[in-house]
Amino acid sequence: MELPEKIQKTVHMFSRLPGVGEKTAIRQTLSMTNWKREELIAFSEALKALSEIKHCKQCGMFADTEVCLICSNERRKESTTLCVVESITDCLAIERSGTFKGRFHILFGVLNPLLGIGPDELKLDQLQKRISEEGVKEVILAVNPSVEGDATCSYIKQILPESVLVERIGFGIPMGGSLEYVDALTISKAMENRRHL
Amino acid sequence: MELPEKIQKTVHMFSRLPGVGEKTAIRQTLSMTNWKREELIAFSEALKALSEIKHCKQCGMFADTEVCLICSNERRKESTTLCVVESITDCLAIERSGTFKGRFHILFGVLNPLLGIGPDELKLDQLQKRISEEGVKEVILAVNPSVEGDATCSYIKQILPESVLVERIGFGIPMGGSLEYVDALTISKAMENRRHL
Repeated sequence: MELPEKIQKTVHMFSRLPGVGEKTAIRQTLSMTNWKREELIAFSEALKALSEIKHCKQCGMFADTEVCLICSNERRKESTTLCVVESITDCLAIERSGTFKGRFHILFGVLNPLLGIGPDELKLDQLQKRISEEGVKEVILAVNPSVEGDATCSYIKQILPESVLVERIGFGIPMGGSLEYVDALTISKAMENRRHL
Repeated sequence: MELPEKIQKTVHMFSRLPGVGEKTAIRQTLSMTNWKREELIAFSEALKALSEIKHCKQCGMFADTEVCLICSNERRKESTTLCVVESITDCLAIERSGTFKGRFHILFGVLNPLLGIGPDELKLDQLQKRISEEGVKEVILAVNPSVEGDATCSYIKQILPESVLVERIGFGIPMGGSLEYVDALTISKAMENRRHL
Protein backbone atom coordinates (compact mmCIF):
# COMPACT_ATOMS: atom_id res chain seq x y z
CA MET A 1 0.00 0.00 0.00
CA GLU A 2 1.22 3.47 -0.86
CA LEU A 3 1.54 5.91 2.01
CA PRO A 4 -0.76 8.93 1.77
CA GLU A 5 0.64 12.02 0.09
CA LYS A 6 0.84 14.00 3.33
CA ILE A 7 3.16 11.42 4.82
CA GLN A 8 5.23 11.05 1.68
CA LYS A 9 5.89 14.78 1.64
CA THR A 10 7.33 14.69 5.15
CA VAL A 11 9.31 11.53 4.33
CA HIS A 12 10.81 13.32 1.34
CA MET A 13 11.82 16.27 3.50
CA PHE A 14 13.39 14.12 6.22
CA SER A 15 15.35 12.11 3.67
CA ARG A 16 17.13 15.29 2.57
CA LEU A 17 18.80 15.60 5.98
CA PRO A 18 22.36 14.34 6.42
CA GLY A 19 22.50 10.70 7.50
CA VAL A 20 18.79 10.05 6.85
CA GLY A 21 17.80 7.58 4.15
CA GLU A 22 14.30 6.71 3.03
CA LYS A 23 13.80 3.97 5.62
CA THR A 24 14.81 6.21 8.52
CA ALA A 25 12.66 9.01 7.12
CA ILE A 26 9.62 6.72 7.01
CA ARG A 27 10.30 5.53 10.56
CA GLN A 28 10.64 9.10 11.82
CA THR A 29 7.55 10.31 10.00
CA LEU A 30 5.43 7.40 11.22
CA SER A 31 6.60 7.97 14.78
CA MET A 32 5.49 11.58 14.41
CA THR A 33 1.98 10.54 13.47
CA ASN A 34 1.65 9.58 17.15
CA TRP A 35 2.60 13.09 18.28
CA LYS A 36 -0.04 15.42 19.60
CA ARG A 37 -1.35 18.10 17.28
CA GLU A 38 0.24 20.89 19.35
CA GLU A 39 3.63 19.21 19.27
CA LEU A 40 3.54 18.91 15.49
CA ILE A 41 2.60 22.55 15.17
CA ALA A 42 5.41 23.54 17.55
CA PHE A 43 7.90 21.62 15.37
CA SER A 44 6.44 23.22 12.27
CA GLU A 45 6.80 26.70 13.79
CA ALA A 46 10.37 25.98 14.88
CA LEU A 47 11.31 25.13 11.31
CA LYS A 48 9.65 28.24 9.98
CA ALA A 49 11.61 30.28 12.52
CA LEU A 50 14.84 28.79 11.18
CA SER A 51 14.27 30.65 7.93
CA GLU A 52 14.28 33.90 9.89
CA ILE A 53 17.54 33.31 11.67
CA LYS A 54 19.93 36.26 11.65
CA HIS A 55 23.64 36.30 11.05
CA CYS A 56 26.15 38.54 12.79
CA LYS A 57 26.92 41.43 10.45
CA GLN A 58 30.58 41.25 11.43
CA CYS A 59 31.63 37.59 11.46
CA GLY A 60 28.60 35.83 9.90
CA MET A 61 27.87 33.64 12.95
CA PHE A 62 24.28 32.99 14.08
CA ALA A 63 23.00 35.88 16.16
CA ASP A 64 19.83 36.83 17.93
CA THR A 65 20.87 40.48 17.69
CA GLU A 66 22.78 42.38 15.00
CA VAL A 67 26.19 41.47 16.36
CA CYS A 68 26.80 37.99 17.78
CA LEU A 69 27.85 37.18 21.34
CA ILE A 70 31.45 36.53 20.29
CA CYS A 71 31.88 39.80 18.41
CA SER A 72 30.24 41.83 21.15
CA ASN A 73 32.38 40.25 23.91
CA GLU A 74 34.62 43.03 25.26
CA ARG A 75 37.50 40.72 26.12
CA ARG A 76 37.51 39.19 22.66
CA LYS A 77 37.49 42.63 21.08
CA GLU A 78 40.89 43.28 22.67
CA SER A 79 42.47 40.38 20.80
CA THR A 80 44.26 41.32 17.57
CA THR A 81 43.96 37.78 16.18
CA LEU A 82 41.24 36.79 13.74
CA CYS A 83 40.39 33.16 13.01
CA VAL A 84 39.09 32.55 9.48
CA VAL A 85 36.87 29.47 9.01
CA GLU A 86 34.83 27.99 6.16
CA SER A 87 31.54 27.50 7.95
CA ILE A 88 29.51 28.09 11.07
CA THR A 89 29.96 24.45 12.10
CA ASP A 90 33.76 24.82 11.94
CA CYS A 91 33.47 27.91 14.11
CA LEU A 92 31.35 26.00 16.63
CA ALA A 93 33.91 23.16 16.67
CA ILE A 94 36.73 25.58 17.54
CA GLU A 95 34.56 27.20 20.19
CA ARG A 96 33.91 23.78 21.73
CA SER A 97 37.64 23.13 21.93
CA GLY A 98 37.96 26.35 23.97
CA THR A 99 41.41 27.07 22.54
CA PHE A 100 40.79 30.34 20.77
CA LYS A 101 39.88 33.54 22.53
CA GLY A 102 39.81 36.02 19.65
CA ARG A 103 37.15 36.72 17.05
CA PHE A 104 36.12 34.73 13.99
CA HIS A 105 35.44 35.45 10.37
CA ILE A 106 33.29 32.98 8.43
CA LEU A 107 33.92 32.69 4.68
CA PHE A 108 30.79 30.62 3.92
CA GLY A 109 32.66 28.29 1.59
CA VAL A 110 36.00 27.89 -0.16
CA LEU A 111 37.10 28.80 -3.68
CA ASN A 112 35.82 26.15 -6.07
CA PRO A 113 35.92 27.07 -9.78
CA LEU A 114 34.12 23.84 -10.75
CA LEU A 115 31.09 24.83 -8.67
CA GLY A 116 31.40 28.44 -9.79
CA ILE A 117 32.52 29.70 -6.38
CA GLY A 118 34.98 32.51 -6.95
CA PRO A 119 36.33 35.19 -4.60
CA ASP A 120 33.13 37.25 -4.95
CA GLU A 121 31.01 34.41 -3.53
CA LEU A 122 33.01 34.33 -0.29
CA LYS A 123 33.07 36.97 2.42
CA LEU A 124 36.52 38.21 1.40
CA ASP A 125 35.73 41.92 0.98
CA GLN A 126 34.43 41.98 4.53
CA LEU A 127 37.57 40.19 5.69
CA GLN A 128 39.82 42.85 4.15
CA LYS A 129 37.64 45.60 5.56
CA ARG A 130 37.67 44.12 9.05
CA ILE A 131 41.42 43.65 9.04
CA SER A 132 42.04 47.31 8.32
CA GLU A 133 39.23 48.63 10.54
CA GLU A 134 39.70 46.39 13.56
CA GLY A 135 43.49 46.55 13.74
CA VAL A 136 44.00 42.81 13.19
CA LYS A 137 47.67 41.82 13.38
CA GLU A 138 47.40 38.05 13.03
CA VAL A 139 45.10 35.87 10.90
CA ILE A 140 44.78 32.15 11.64
CA LEU A 141 43.39 30.27 8.64
CA ALA A 142 41.44 27.37 10.17
CA VAL A 143 40.44 26.12 6.72
CA ASN A 144 40.09 22.37 6.15
CA PRO A 145 42.85 20.59 4.22
CA SER A 146 41.70 20.03 0.62
CA VAL A 147 42.73 21.29 -2.80
CA GLU A 148 40.10 24.02 -2.57
CA GLY A 149 41.03 24.87 1.01
CA ASP A 150 44.69 25.18 0.08
CA ALA A 151 43.87 27.44 -2.87
CA THR A 152 41.67 29.61 -0.69
CA CYS A 153 44.46 30.01 1.85
CA SER A 154 46.97 31.03 -0.84
CA TYR A 155 44.49 33.52 -2.22
CA ILE A 156 43.82 35.06 1.18
CA LYS A 157 47.55 35.32 1.88
CA GLN A 158 47.91 37.29 -1.37
CA ILE A 159 45.12 39.78 -0.78
CA LEU A 160 46.01 40.63 2.82
CA PRO A 161 48.47 43.41 3.62
CA GLU A 162 52.02 42.23 4.25
CA SER A 163 52.02 43.69 7.73
CA VAL A 164 49.52 41.03 8.85
CA LEU A 165 50.89 37.70 10.05
CA VAL A 166 48.99 34.95 8.18
CA GLU A 167 49.16 31.41 9.57
CA ARG A 168 47.38 28.13 8.90
CA ILE A 169 46.44 25.57 11.56
CA GLY A 170 48.67 22.51 11.86
CA PHE A 171 47.94 19.19 10.16
CA GLY A 172 49.08 15.77 11.28
CA ILE A 173 48.05 12.66 13.18
CA PRO A 174 44.92 13.34 15.28
CA MET A 175 45.13 12.80 19.04
CA GLY A 176 44.31 9.20 19.88
CA GLY A 177 44.89 8.32 16.22
CA SER A 178 46.99 5.35 15.25
CA LEU A 179 49.67 5.48 12.53
CA GLU A 180 48.47 2.06 11.44
CA TYR A 181 45.07 3.36 10.36
CA VAL A 182 45.86 6.91 9.29
CA ASP A 183 46.02 7.55 5.51
CA ALA A 184 49.33 8.13 3.73
CA LEU A 185 48.66 11.81 3.01
CA THR A 186 48.12 12.56 6.69
CA ILE A 187 51.34 10.73 7.55
CA SER A 188 53.30 12.71 4.97
CA LYS A 189 51.80 15.95 6.39
CA ALA A 190 52.72 14.84 9.89
CA MET A 191 56.28 14.13 8.77
CA GLU A 192 56.49 17.55 7.15
CA ASN A 193 55.17 19.22 10.29
CA ARG A 194 57.55 17.45 12.70
CA ARG A 195 58.88 19.55 15.58
CA HIS A 196 61.96 19.65 17.76
CA LEU A 197 61.48 18.15 21.20
CA MET B 1 29.08 29.67 22.42
CA GLU B 2 25.45 28.84 22.97
CA LEU B 3 23.35 28.30 19.88
CA PRO B 4 20.53 30.82 19.39
CA GLU B 5 17.15 29.91 20.79
CA LYS B 6 15.59 29.40 17.36
CA ILE B 7 18.12 26.69 16.59
CA GLN B 8 17.88 25.07 20.00
CA LYS B 9 14.12 24.71 19.59
CA THR B 10 14.52 22.77 16.36
CA VAL B 11 17.34 20.69 17.87
CA HIS B 12 15.04 19.78 20.74
CA MET B 13 12.30 18.69 18.34
CA PHE B 14 14.65 16.60 16.19
CA SER B 15 16.12 14.88 19.23
CA ARG B 16 12.67 13.52 20.08
CA LEU B 17 12.66 11.40 16.92
CA PRO B 18 13.64 7.74 17.13
CA GLY B 19 17.36 7.17 16.60
CA VAL B 20 18.23 10.86 16.86
CA GLY B 21 20.42 12.05 19.73
CA GLU B 22 21.46 15.61 20.50
CA LYS B 23 24.56 15.52 18.27
CA THR B 24 22.62 14.28 15.24
CA ALA B 25 19.87 16.81 15.94
CA ILE B 26 22.41 19.65 15.96
CA ARG B 27 23.98 18.38 12.75
CA GLN B 28 20.59 18.14 11.06
CA THR B 29 19.44 21.55 12.25
CA LEU B 30 22.67 23.24 11.18
CA SER B 31 22.46 21.62 7.76
CA MET B 32 18.96 23.03 7.48
CA THR B 33 20.19 26.56 8.08
CA ASN B 34 21.65 26.28 4.55
CA TRP B 35 18.24 25.45 3.07
CA LYS B 36 16.36 28.05 1.11
CA ARG B 37 13.55 29.86 2.84
CA GLU B 38 10.92 28.22 0.60
CA GLU B 39 12.24 24.75 1.38
CA LEU B 40 12.05 25.36 5.11
CA ILE B 41 8.52 26.63 4.79
CA ALA B 42 7.58 23.56 2.69
CA PHE B 43 8.96 21.28 5.42
CA SER B 44 7.12 23.28 8.05
CA GLU B 45 3.86 22.98 6.11
CA ALA B 46 4.37 19.23 5.60
CA LEU B 47 4.66 18.76 9.36
CA LYS B 48 1.58 20.83 10.00
CA ALA B 49 -0.30 18.69 7.46
CA LEU B 50 0.70 15.57 9.43
CA SER B 51 -1.52 16.72 12.26
CA GLU B 52 -4.47 16.69 9.86
CA ILE B 53 -3.93 13.17 8.60
CA LYS B 54 -7.08 11.06 8.50
CA HIS B 55 -7.54 7.46 9.52
CA CYS B 56 -9.76 4.95 7.76
CA LYS B 57 -13.00 4.72 9.74
CA GLN B 58 -13.03 0.95 9.22
CA CYS B 59 -9.52 -0.38 9.85
CA GLY B 60 -7.71 2.66 11.29
CA MET B 61 -5.06 2.84 8.55
CA PHE B 62 -3.92 6.17 7.10
CA ALA B 63 -6.35 7.41 4.50
CA ASP B 64 -6.71 10.41 2.23
CA THR B 65 -10.45 9.72 2.06
CA GLU B 66 -12.90 8.33 4.62
CA VAL B 67 -12.14 4.70 3.82
CA CYS B 68 -8.58 3.63 3.01
CA LEU B 69 -7.38 2.07 -0.24
CA ILE B 70 -7.26 -1.41 1.29
CA CYS B 71 -10.78 -1.35 2.70
CA SER B 72 -12.24 0.10 -0.50
CA ASN B 73 -10.51 -2.48 -2.71
CA GLU B 74 -13.28 -4.65 -4.19
CA ARG B 75 -11.16 -7.80 -4.37
CA ARG B 76 -10.13 -7.49 -0.75
CA LYS B 77 -13.75 -6.99 0.28
CA GLU B 78 -14.51 -10.49 -0.97
CA SER B 79 -12.07 -12.04 1.49
CA THR B 80 -13.61 -13.32 4.72
CA THR B 81 -10.30 -13.16 6.56
CA LEU B 82 -9.38 -10.22 8.82
CA CYS B 83 -5.83 -9.61 9.99
CA VAL B 84 -5.58 -7.91 13.39
CA VAL B 85 -2.39 -5.92 14.05
CA GLU B 86 -1.12 -3.67 16.82
CA SER B 87 -0.06 -0.66 14.79
CA ILE B 88 -0.01 0.98 11.39
CA THR B 89 3.66 0.13 10.99
CA ASP B 90 2.91 -3.57 11.52
CA CYS B 91 0.18 -3.34 8.89
CA LEU B 92 2.63 -1.71 6.47
CA ALA B 93 5.17 -4.48 7.15
CA ILE B 94 2.63 -7.18 6.25
CA GLU B 95 1.61 -5.24 3.14
CA ARG B 96 5.26 -5.06 2.08
CA SER B 97 5.55 -8.84 2.39
CA GLY B 98 2.64 -9.14 -0.05
CA THR B 99 1.39 -12.33 1.65
CA PHE B 100 -2.03 -11.21 2.84
CA LYS B 101 -4.84 -10.28 0.52
CA GLY B 102 -7.68 -9.65 2.97
CA ARG B 103 -8.46 -6.61 5.08
CA PHE B 104 -6.82 -5.37 8.28
CA HIS B 105 -7.93 -4.17 11.66
CA ILE B 106 -5.58 -2.00 13.69
CA LEU B 107 -5.85 -2.18 17.49
CA PHE B 108 -3.60 0.85 18.19
CA GLY B 109 -1.84 -0.92 21.05
CA VAL B 110 -2.01 -4.01 23.21
CA LEU B 111 -3.50 -4.59 26.64
CA ASN B 112 -1.09 -3.25 29.24
CA PRO B 113 -2.51 -2.82 32.76
CA LEU B 114 0.72 -1.19 34.00
CA LEU B 115 0.34 1.63 31.48
CA GLY B 116 -3.41 1.77 32.08
CA ILE B 117 -4.30 0.36 28.66
CA GLY B 118 -7.40 -1.77 29.09
CA PRO B 119 -9.85 -3.20 26.50
CA ASP B 120 -11.60 0.19 26.18
CA GLU B 121 -8.41 1.88 24.97
CA LEU B 122 -8.08 -0.51 22.03
CA LYS B 123 -10.32 -0.70 18.96
CA LEU B 124 -12.03 -3.89 20.20
CA ASP B 125 -15.64 -2.72 19.94
CA GLN B 126 -15.11 -1.90 16.28
CA LEU B 127 -13.49 -5.30 15.78
CA GLN B 128 -16.55 -7.10 17.16
CA LYS B 129 -18.85 -4.90 15.10
CA ARG B 130 -16.89 -5.48 11.90
CA ILE B 131 -16.81 -9.24 12.42
CA SER B 132 -20.59 -9.46 12.63
CA GLU B 133 -21.30 -6.86 9.92
CA GLU B 134 -18.71 -7.90 7.34
CA GLY B 135 -19.22 -11.65 7.56
CA VAL B 136 -15.69 -12.39 8.75
CA LYS B 137 -15.04 -16.12 9.15
CA GLU B 138 -11.36 -16.12 10.01
CA VAL B 139 -9.26 -13.77 12.17
CA ILE B 140 -5.47 -13.84 11.97
CA LEU B 141 -3.89 -12.26 15.04
CA ALA B 142 -0.62 -10.76 13.77
CA VAL B 143 0.23 -9.42 17.21
CA ASN B 144 3.88 -9.29 18.30
CA PRO B 145 5.08 -11.96 20.76
CA SER B 146 5.26 -10.42 24.25
CA VAL B 147 3.44 -10.90 27.54
CA GLU B 148 1.07 -8.08 26.62
CA GLY B 149 0.61 -9.40 23.08
CA ASP B 150 -0.20 -12.89 24.36
CA ALA B 151 -2.75 -11.50 26.84
CA THR B 152 -4.36 -9.41 24.11
CA CYS B 153 -4.69 -12.47 21.86
CA SER B 154 -6.32 -14.53 24.63
CA TYR B 155 -8.70 -11.68 25.35
CA ILE B 156 -9.70 -11.31 21.69
CA LYS B 157 -10.23 -15.08 21.40
CA GLN B 158 -12.65 -14.85 24.33
CA ILE B 159 -14.74 -11.94 23.07
CA LEU B 160 -15.16 -13.23 19.51
CA PRO B 161 -18.07 -15.53 18.57
CA GLU B 162 -17.18 -19.24 18.54
CA SER B 163 -18.10 -19.55 14.88
CA VAL B 164 -15.09 -17.45 13.92
CA LEU B 165 -11.76 -19.23 13.40
CA VAL B 166 -9.13 -17.34 15.42
CA GLU B 167 -5.47 -17.96 14.61
CA ARG B 168 -2.18 -16.42 15.54
CA ILE B 169 0.82 -16.02 13.20
CA GLY B 170 3.64 -18.53 13.63
CA PHE B 171 6.74 -17.87 15.72
CA GLY B 172 10.14 -19.46 15.25
CA ILE B 173 13.58 -18.95 13.74
CA PRO B 174 13.53 -16.07 11.25
CA MET B 175 14.57 -16.79 7.65
CA GLY B 176 18.33 -16.41 7.29
CA GLY B 177 18.62 -16.60 11.07
CA SER B 178 21.17 -18.83 12.72
CA LEU B 179 20.35 -21.14 15.66
CA GLU B 180 23.72 -20.15 17.10
CA TYR B 181 22.65 -16.54 17.61
CA VAL B 182 18.93 -16.86 18.22
CA ASP B 183 17.73 -16.48 21.82
CA ALA B 184 16.55 -19.48 23.86
CA LEU B 185 12.91 -18.39 23.93
CA THR B 186 12.74 -18.25 20.14
CA ILE B 187 14.31 -21.70 19.93
CA SER B 188 11.78 -23.13 22.37
CA LYS B 189 8.96 -21.53 20.33
CA ALA B 190 10.43 -22.97 17.14
CA MET B 191 10.57 -26.45 18.75
CA GLU B 192 6.96 -26.13 19.83
CA ASN B 193 5.92 -25.05 16.33
CA ARG B 194 7.70 -27.87 14.51
CA ARG B 195 5.90 -29.33 11.51
CA HIS B 196 5.78 -32.65 9.68
CA LEU B 197 7.78 -32.75 6.46
